[in-house]
Amino acid sequence: MARYLEPRLERASRADMRRLQARRVRQQVAHARARSPFYRRKLAGAPTVKTLEDLARLPFTTKDELKDNQAAKPPWGDVLAVPFEDVLRIHMTSATTGRPLAFLDTAEDWYGFYHSYARALHAFGVRKADMVMAAFSYGPWIGYWSGFYAAQDLGCLVFPAGGLSTEQRIDALRTWPITVLGCTPSYALFLAEQAAKKGIDLAKDTKVRITWHTGEPGASIPATKAKIEAAFGSRAYDLPGLTEIAAWGFECDARSGLVHVNEDYCYPEVLDEAGEPVRPGGRGELVFTSLYRKAMPLIRYRTRDVVQLADRRCPCGRTLLALEGGVLARLDDMKKVRGIIVYPRRVEELVRPFSGVDEFQIVFRRHEGLDDIVVRIDPSPALARAECDGLCRQLSEALRVGLGIRVTVEATEPGALPRWDHKARRVKDERTEVPF
Amino acid sequence: MARYLEPRLERASRADMRRLQARRVRQQVAHARARSPFYRRKLAGAPTVKTLEDLARLPFTTKDELKDNQAAKPPWGDVLAVPFEDVLRIHMTSATTGRPLAFLDTAEDWYGFYHSYARALHAFGVRKADMVMAAFSYGPWIGYWSGFYAAQDLGCLVFPAGGLSTEQRIDALRTWPITVLGCTPSYALFLAEQAAKKGIDLAKDTKVRITWHTGEPGASIPATKAKIEAAFGSRAYDLPGLTEIAAWGFECDARSGLVHVNEDYCYPEVLDEAGEPVRPGGRGELVFTSLYRKAMPLIRYRTRDVVQLADRRCPCGRTLLALEGGVLARLDDMKKVRGIIVYPRRVEELVRPFSGVDEFQIVFRRHEGLDDIVVRIDPSPALARAECDGLCRQLSEALRVGLGIRVTVEATEPGALPRWDHKARRVKDERTEVPF
Repeated sequence: MARYLEPRLERASRADMRRLQARRVRQQVAHARARSPFYRRKLAGAPTVKTLEDLARLPFTTKDELKDNQAAKPPWGDVLAVPFEDVLRIHMTSATTGRPLAFLDTAEDWYGFYHSYARALHAFGVRKADMVMAAFSYGPWIGYWSGFYAAQDLGCLVFPAGGLSTEQRIDALRTWPITVLGCTPSYALFLAEQAAKKGIDLAKDTKVRITWHTGEPGASIPATKAKIEAAFGSRAYDLPGLTEIAAWGFECDARSGLVHVNEDYCYPEVLDEAGEPVRPGGRGELVFTSLYRKAMPLIRYRTRDVVQLADRRCPCGRTLLALEGGVLARLDDMKKVRGIIVYPRRVEELVRPFSGVDEFQIVFRRHEGLDDIVVRIDPSPALARAECDGLCRQLSEALRVGLGIRVTVEATEPGALPRWDHKARRVKDERTEVPF
Repeated sequence: MARYLEPRLERASRADMRRLQARRVRQQVAHARARSPFYRRKLAGAPTVKTLEDLARLPFTTKDELKDNQAAKPPWGDVLAVPFEDVLRIHMTSATTGRPLAFLDTAEDWYGFYHSYARALHAFGVRKADMVMAAFSYGPWIGYWSGFYAAQDLGCLVFPAGGLSTEQRIDALRTWPITVLGCTPSYALFLAEQAAKKGIDLAKDTKVRITWHTGEPGASIPATKAKIEAAFGSRAYDLPGLTEIAAWGFECDARSGLVHVNEDYCYPEVLDEAGEPVRPGGRGELVFTSLYRKAMPLIRYRTRDVVQLADRRCPCGRTLLALEGGVLARLDDMKKVRGIIVYPRRVEELVRPFSGVDEFQIVFRRHEGLDDIVVRIDPSPALARAECDGLCRQLSEALRVGLGIRVTVEATEPGALPRWDHKARRVKDERTEVPF
């Protein structure tokens, strides 16, 4: 079995990749300027882009700008750079607040999105003979729609799992020879928990050998990944992506902790707070320029994702830009507590190694005049009272050391915390939630 | 705008069509004999097929045979005539009882299914500039999955509506410029009823101009069609299809009451009870031989659908075989009451013209030693008590005349009968339902 789906691109020399990127950047910027009313305004007076270096002289595009644009010119603003009748697909960003952002694609754009995704599935080891279930709602969420098409692109047998309950999905996993499962990390754990309640061991009672995860960073958090892998007796892979850009990255079967970036589909910049490129090993915000999408060709789009440029090579042999450990933090999720910055992902990294925790919730609150963090844990029903108390103490200590701040840990009754069949919402900030 | 998607096929001369059919029948029968273990056994000793006339010498295939085969050799029996790794899609028949029938397709089979469906959408007037919502669960039901792909095949913008509640779908119909809606007739009426409850007039408050319907015969029942068209201010079209065969037929924009058959995808025979072909104008069971599907190539498959061969031409100019009024009855739905044959479709034809009926149910029961039919109606909330009583009397008389048998009509409280978001199940046969 070939290791690479597209060796010419995945193993391109740096010079070849930059030539390809420069050509596509030139085309995209010219296309956006000529055809997108939004970019015609935004780039009026901006310099011409001939090289990748020139790109840095263009302004950033932000999600807020796109949202404002769609609100001002409903329903989809005027970023659109192709005739409406050329548009084939619509998807929406998962809005935690307010109106979701609608994103349109032509047939070629859509092919680009799922074909870049197919490269990732191939890198996980998914092949034509696999039977694949993408377990999601089949609503306008691109994350697994594109995964479903990517699996078809590889020639896999796809099982359409919309409208099925969790119980029916577990039943399908046992009835059909499904070897690959895609879903959020939270839903993978929920499936396993529900199966266990019925005495079903997904690791033994199904043929699943690969799971892949997008929508949440879980599969790049070692303890979360290990928990999913144990539950399914399979290998779990992280696929970071962005509705507005692409299925932009993937782990590979070398399992080196690196994420490869589909930099032929989207030109990446990793920028520090001053907007300067970081060096290998450095952390910064990921900024993408879409190199293939013609309907809504975003330029220097700020992803709000914090990543770390790798300063090592992956043993798989891919030359694509690599990041250390996936998306390390989302700037939009950042919380400040008594001057300390806390990211929910970091809390998950610290909580998941405790196997006695079935589910958790992070509450930021104001308590006796001070900001405070409470981590609520939903303990395994197997734990005795004293074990549970011990677990809370140990976790509290791990969080204090890991975050550099004192954290209150509380145990709920087993099963009391909500479970998640889509992206989890484990964070509550009671400081900003106004109770009326 | 071109009237035909594929004029060469839709307007083929009889001689050309028969040549094409004969060639494909020969190929399919040879393929099935060579590659399908099921058909190798079934056709052992059967004569060679060189002409369309020869086909009549082969045995029929029935749904029960396929079900038995899948039960004996789980999960998908051994009809499969291609290597498993060549299979791309799986769908299931909607099982009213027992295990559903699983149906597999290669990439080319799947293209054939949705491309034949695209011909139908084109005939309804759907074009590239349309925005299309297929309102179904996105579970393994081929009826609207293939419709979704067919709309994409025409280049339409498709709105993925899985996981959305009826309320969210109504909201989407108002928010986005959706011009085409696909769903079961029952769900179309349910959407309209739910919208009306919230003061929303789908005819005024949406841009829907075409609705199409499969899964139930409703859109070929004039009064049901009229009710849907009034609710949406649009034109409603019937698309009869069968998981095991194809999206085999369609009404066209000439609205002549005829259904065109995609006889280049599936070779039709209309046979009387003795198995002899009926003449134009005659009624019989529709039997199909699949001309394009390689994974599960069904030969002389008994559809259990009763149709009537047209003895007139459609003004649209298509030369494809035409049927009068779609699927007139399903043999599996046939009921006998005191020696009289009653089809649920006929009851719907008689009930729907009464605009005071929001929903209905047909109950076959044994009452004081005699078989009896009760039609329960869920009256419009706008009706006064006396109006409702009058409605029951009029409907009772219409049913007596139309069915040739006395029928008890009972009104429930408004809203008491179940509504349907998939295929409706309006028939209860209490004579066969054992109460333990």
